[in-house]
Amino acid sequence: MNMTLTRRYRFAASHRLHADALSEEENRKLYGKCNNPFGHGHDYVLEVTVEGVPDASGQIADRAALDGVVREQVLSRLDHMNLNQDLPEFQTRVPTTENLATWIEKMLLERWDLRARLARLRIAETDRNAFELETAK
Amino acid sequence: MNMTLTRRYRFAASHRLHADALSEEENRKLYGKCNNPFGHGHDYVLEVTVEGVPDASGQIADRAALDGVVREQVLSRLDHMNLNQDLPEFQTRVPTTENLATWIEKMLLERWDLRARLARLRIAETDRNAFELETAK
Amino acid sequence: MNMTLTRRYRFAASHRLHADALSEEENRKLYGKCNNPFGHGHDYVLEVTVEGVPDASGQIADRAALDGVVREQVLSRLDHMNLNQDLPEFQTRVPTTENLATWIEKMLLERWDLRARLARLRIAETDRNAFELETAK
Amino acid sequence: MNMTLTRRYRFAASHRLHADALSEEENRKLYGKCNNPFGHGHDYVLEVTVEGVPDASGQIADRAALDGVVREQVLSRLDHMNLNQDLPEFQTRVPTTENLATWIEKMLLERWDLRARLARLRIAETDRNAFELETAK
Amino acid sequence: MNMTLTRRYRFAASHRLHADALSEEENRKLYGKCNNPFGHGHDYVLEVTVEGVPDASGQIADRAALDGVVREQVLSRLDHMNLNQDLPEFQTRVPTTENLATWIEKMLLERWDLRARLARLRIAETDRNAFELETAK
Amino acid sequence: MNMTLTRRYRFAASHRLHADALSEEENRKLYGKCNNPFGHGHDYVLEVTVEGVPDASGQIADRAALDGVVREQVLSRLDHMNLNQDLPEFQTRVPTTENLATWIEKMLLERWDLRARLARLRIAETDRNAFELETAK
Repeated sequence: MNMTLTRRYRFAASHRLHADALSEEENRKLYGKCNNPFGHGHDYVLEVTVEGVPDASGQIADRAALDGVVREQVLSRLDHMNLNQDLPEFQTRVPTTENLATWIEKMLLERWDLRARLARLRIAETDRNAFELETAK
Repeated sequence: MNMTLTRRYRFAASHRLHADALSEEENRKLYGKCNNPFGHGHDYVLEVTVEGVPDASGQIADRAALDGVVREQVLSRLDHMNLNQDLPEFQTRVPTTENLATWIEKMLLERWDLRARLARLRIAETDRNAFELETAK
Repeated sequence: MNMTLTRRYRFAASHRLHADALSEEENRKLYGKCNNPFGHGHDYVLEVTVEGVPDASGQIADRAALDGVVREQVLSRLDHMNLNQDLPEFQTRVPTTENLATWIEKMLLERWDLRARLARLRIAETDRNAFELETAK
Repeated sequence: MNMTLTRRYRFAASHRLHADALSEEENRKLYGKCNNPFGHGHDYVLEVTVEGVPDASGQIADRAALDGVVREQVLSRLDHMNLNQDLPEFQTRVPTTENLATWIEKMLLERWDLRARLARLRIAETDRNAFELETAK
Repeated sequence: MNMTLTRRYRFAASHRLHADALSEEENRKLYGKCNNPFGHGHDYVLEVTVEGVPDASGQIADRAALDGVVREQVLSRLDHMNLNQDLPEFQTRVPTTENLATWIEKMLLERWDLRARLARLRIAETDRNAFELETAK
Repeated sequence: MNMTLTRRYRFAASHRLHADALSEEENRKLYGKCNNPFGHGHDYVLEVTVEGVPDASGQIADRAALDGVVREQVLSRLDHMNLNQDLPEFQTRVPTTENLATWIEKMLLERWDLRARLARLRIAETDRNAFELETAK
């Protein structure tokens, strides 16, 4: 019987939303306060959901292995970082949470060696805003 | 790649659960304390989920546009209101959270002009109770 | 050694803020949306703090006794009620959370028979608003 | 129109993760701190989701009936219990939250007499860990 | 009878902890990840507590007046800002939450015209970290 | 100017409330479900508050030093443990949260070498129950 396990992680990061292809005014109109020149920050909450069938140990995934891949591939690159300046990816793409979600999915799949399938990512940017991505089967 | 954005809103309202077609006793049995004559209230938490593909701005929906339609169509009519007496809709229908959810969906779809699709509504009546509605594709 | 125990309770109620001595316009200006004629509601969170010294049982207060007095004196009168219409107290006083707090304190002290002292009341009206009252020693 | 209602319940329980078929060292490696001999505990949060169509009362399920079956079949057996020693089921199976979820589903379906369908169970073991199970249609 | 009202506000900001008087290595040792060159961010939660006696309106403070002074003096200067670069104050002082708290207190007292006394400030930097400051009577 | 810093920690533990000096029946009456023979568990939330004056680094306490003493003296002894069986202290005293609080205070003060004063401990046993202890000046 299929089941999911969701684990919750946190990281603090700063970013600025700004598209180089647009004028200053268009950027301000499009991104509002998020376009402020020196950036601002959030305590992001990342939820990683894996899906599988419990094995003989009664678990669908080894918690330590899951934490390891998330820490190594994602948290170590994002926590206490400035997304625009510390991540090569976001020097040319706008670090919206949508784009951050697809980047996190790519980073996790690059080294995914768990028996359970990566099923879903959810990133809450603030307590009023969350983004969710189903991973293709 | 499809993704969802969920935004969270709050409104305080009062209501009384009472079906005119039923006797006093049947109402009390059916709705319990929620049938108390003068009504009671809740701080409702409304989550609106939209689904789409990020555009060139890296966003699946303009946050301000989404907030605008929710505020104009829903919050301005519900916040600090008595559902039974301030809303024509609930003078003849019981303002259960189930019925409130379908009404909110109707109000949003009436003026929906976002590129992203309205995918899901979730209303938490209290911290122990939540209702969810998937919008038909 | 003195210590406190805080227990958390919830009740849903509706109210309308309106002072009979003021004009309609003054009421609207003073209480804003809270003056809406038919009332609105909240899920109040009440925290009751008692202070004392642990006895031989290792406890400063019997949890069941504390729950009993709070339920009997307070929750049974407030939960799922309309403060203005169901409580004699608030037919002549405005049911602001400040006035509600002093009423709850009075109700608890009327039948207080716990060894521990009632030390503090805290009422959160919404998740952005809380009121606190220290009980006189 | 289909809709879901999710109600949230809590229970406190203790458990120890230990598979009899494995050596002491394998158990320690597999379950980490959760293998500590005398057990440890959690405040589990159980969310039960039912799915249905609102009836004439404006409700997809009677709240009291749902609470009754959850309390009788599940909470009364789990709250303030030691899963390994108080539940026959977990004298031979490891009480991981995965196994607990399938047991709760079985217990609920055994006496399910609500019009609404049991759609989903979610158990949060801690605030960083949650398990979800879709009930087969 | 004295009572307090606490209102909760939120702002997102970025900062970098770095003391100019110290060497690079001393800074890294002292502030850890918070010294990362390009800064990082948080969703700060600010709680402002005022103390007073309810007046004839049943309130110890006008909610709109309190929100106004907090918004004008504090939130408008901090929300979506980079503390080090957007605030003159923090070009020479380290923007720790301790220093931020004393700055917020100073800003509020500069224009405080409420009848109720500013009693306490609380700033949560993350959900694991909070700072509190009692205002001198 | 004095200020406090509160840091939040979590640990999962199990316990049984039982006083050897009392009869089986007295124990059941006194502790209710908490007297169940095999114990039950909680996810405790511990908040440690220190008080002091910010130094040249803009901090009242070094976060890493505080985390270190809490981890070494308290969390390493409590997390994933059975309080009655794994802690010598609670083989003769009842592990109520009141007694746990005084034990944690003693453990912290035994090795306290921070410049800031230990001011307060708060232990939430569940989300409806919290205990607070002011440390003597």
